[in-house]
Amino acid sequence: MKCRRCREPAVIDIRRHNAAFCGPCFLHHCREQVRRAIDDYAMFGADERVLVAVSGGKDSLALWDILLGLGYHADGLYVGLGIGEYSDASGEHARAFAGERQARLVEVDIPAEYGFDIPGAAVATHRVPCSACGLSKGHLFNKAALDRGYVLGTGHNVDDEAAVLFGSVLRWGAEFLSRQHPVLRASDGFARKVKPLIRLGERETAAYCVLRGIDYIVEECPNAVGNKHLGYKEQLNAIEEQSPGTKAAFYFGFLDRVSSLFSPPAGSGPADLRPCASCGAPTTSPVCAFCSLAARAGAR
Amino acid sequence: MKCRRCREPAVIDIRRHNAAFCGPCFLHHCREQVRRAIDDYAMFGADERVLVAVSGGKDSLALWDILLGLGYHADGLYVGLGIGEYSDASGEHARAFAGERQARLVEVDIPAEYGFDIPGAAVATHRVPCSACGLSKGHLFNKAALDRGYVLGTGHNVDDEAAVLFGSVLRWGAEFLSRQHPVLRASDGFARKVKPLIRLGERETAAYCVLRGIDYIVEECPNAVGNKHLGYKEQLNAIEEQSPGTKAAFYFGFLDRVSSLFSPPAGSGPADLRPCASCGAPTTSPVCAFCSLAARAGAR
Repeated sequence: MKCRRCREPAVIDIRRHNAAFCGPCFLHHCREQVRRAIDDYAMFGADERVLVAVSGGKDSLALWDILLGLGYHADGLYVGLGIGEYSDASGEHARAFAGERQARLVEVDIPAEYGFDIPGAAVATHRVPCSACGLSKGHLFNKAALDRGYVLGTGHNVDDEAAVLFGSVLRWGAEFLSRQHPVLRASDGFARKVKPLIRLGERETAAYCVLRGIDYIVEECPNAVGNKHLGYKEQLNAIEEQSPGTKAAFYFGFLDRVSSLFSPPAGSGPADLRPCASCGAPTTSPVCAFCSLAARAGAR
Repeated sequence: MKCRRCREPAVIDIRRHNAAFCGPCFLHHCREQVRRAIDDYAMFGADERVLVAVSGGKDSLALWDILLGLGYHADGLYVGLGIGEYSDASGEHARAFAGERQARLVEVDIPAEYGFDIPGAAVATHRVPCSACGLSKGHLFNKAALDRGYVLGTGHNVDDEAAVLFGSVLRWGAEFLSRQHPVLRASDGFARKVKPLIRLGERETAAYCVLRGIDYIVEECPNAVGNKHLGYKEQLNAIEEQSPGTKAAFYFGFLDRVSSLFSPPAGSGPADLRPCASCGAPTTSPVCAFCSLAARAGAR
C-alpha cells in the first residue's frame, strides 16, 4: 500500500476512509482531523486556553500533544481517582508527558483532597464504579476548568462517542441525546466542554502515540471490565468490521441530521438550578451529586 | 418456577417480563399481547378482513392462528419465491396449516405467474437476494391485499422490528425511520399494513407454535445467511442477554417518544407518485421497481 498523500510506502491503513498513510503523513492526517473538528464545531479560538483532561491513556495524551502541535495554549488536568496501581501508573504517564514537554499539569487528587476513593465510594453508594467515577470526574473537571478560566477538552474519540450514542439510543433518553454533542456551551456554573478527537478512532490515537513516541498507559481501568459501555463498543466493532464506516456514519449522521430534534428549546436552561449548599456548584438538589457521594463515601 | 397467572408449574419463562407461564396461560399471554397490539395501535376492527402474509415459518403461522383464535376473519397469502427446496417446503407448511383449519390460502407463485425467481433476479440485477426478495414481496403483498380488499398483516415480531430499527438508526435514514411503525395507513394504491406480533419475541412465537402443535419450517432462508439484518439481530441479542428488556425498551421507546419526530408533516404524501406504465402500481419512476426487476430478470 502507498501513502494516500505522498505515495511512499504506507504504515497504517484506515478502512473507513479507504486510505493508508506513511508515518509523517499519518501524523499530519491526525492533526488535520483535530483542526477540522475544532473549526467545524467552533470549539475554541486561538486566544483561548484549553485544559485537557488527561488520564495517561492514548486518547488524552494524543489530544494534548496535537493541541500543543497546532499551537494552542493547552495545559493538562490529572484527577487522581485512588484506583490502586492503575491510578499510580496513570498519574506517572501524565506527569512524564508533561515533564518532557515542560507543559503545565494541574493535579487534583481525590483521596488527598477529598478523603475518599472511587472504589470505596462505589461500595458506599451501591453504584457501579464507572458511575461513581464519571460523576466525580464530571464535577472536578468542570470545577478545575471553571476556577481557572479554561475551556475543558476531553479525549473522547469517535469510537467512544458512537458507543455512548448507541447506549443513549437504546433507551431513547432525550436528556442524554440532547447532550451528545462535541461542544457543550458554557453557562452559569458550567465551563465550555469540547471533544476535539471526534474525527479520530481509537486505533488512530494509539498509532499516533506510537509514532510520536508517547508512552501511554495501555491497560484499561480494572473497574471498567465488563461494563456496558465496553459491551456497546464491542457490538459496534463487530458491525464496523463487516461494514467499515458504519460507526462514523452513525455518529456524524446523528450530529448532522438528528441531534437538533432532541435539543431543548432555545432559551430553556437546566431547570431549577441552585448552588450546592456544600460546594456552590449548580445543582437541582440541596447538595450536589458529588458532595453527596463524597459524604456517603466517608469524606473528611 | 410457577406460572405467573395460575401458580401451576411453568414451562416457559420470559426474561424481559420477568415472568413464567404454564402452557395454557402462555397461549393466553400470546393472544393477549396480540389483542393489545391491535387495540393500542388501532390496527383493524372486528369487521375488517386481514390477509396474513405467510412464509410457513413460526411467526406468520402463529399470527394467523392467533387471529383466527381471536375471532378475526383472517385469510393467508403465500408468495412462492422460487428459492428451490426452501420455497417448496415453505409452501407445504402454509398449505398444511390452511388445510387443517379449512382456512383460505391465497397463493401467488412468482416463477409460474411472472416467469422469474428470486435467486435469478438477484443475479440479473446485481442485488443481494434479500433485496430482490423484499422488493418483490412488498409489491405482491400489497397488490394481493389491495385487489381483494384486505388489511395486510405480517408476522414481524419485536426482535425483527428492533433489528430493522437498529439498521435504520445506524444510518439515521429519515425515510426508513418514518416508516418504522406497526401500522402504515392505506393511501391511494397502498393497502393498510399492520404488524400485530410486535409485542411478542421470536422465542415466544416459536414456543406458541410448539404448544399449539403448529408444524412450521424451522430453517432460515438459505439466502439470508450472513445478511446484515441477521447480524443486527445477533448484536441486539448479545445486549439483551446482558440486560433483558433492552430490545423492547429500544423499540417501544422509539414508537412512544421518538417516531413522531421523523414523521412526514401531516398532509404530505409520497412525492410525485404516478401509475407504473406496466402494472399500474404507484411509483415515482415510469416503471415500478418490481416490474423493472422482473424485466431485468427475464420475466416472460
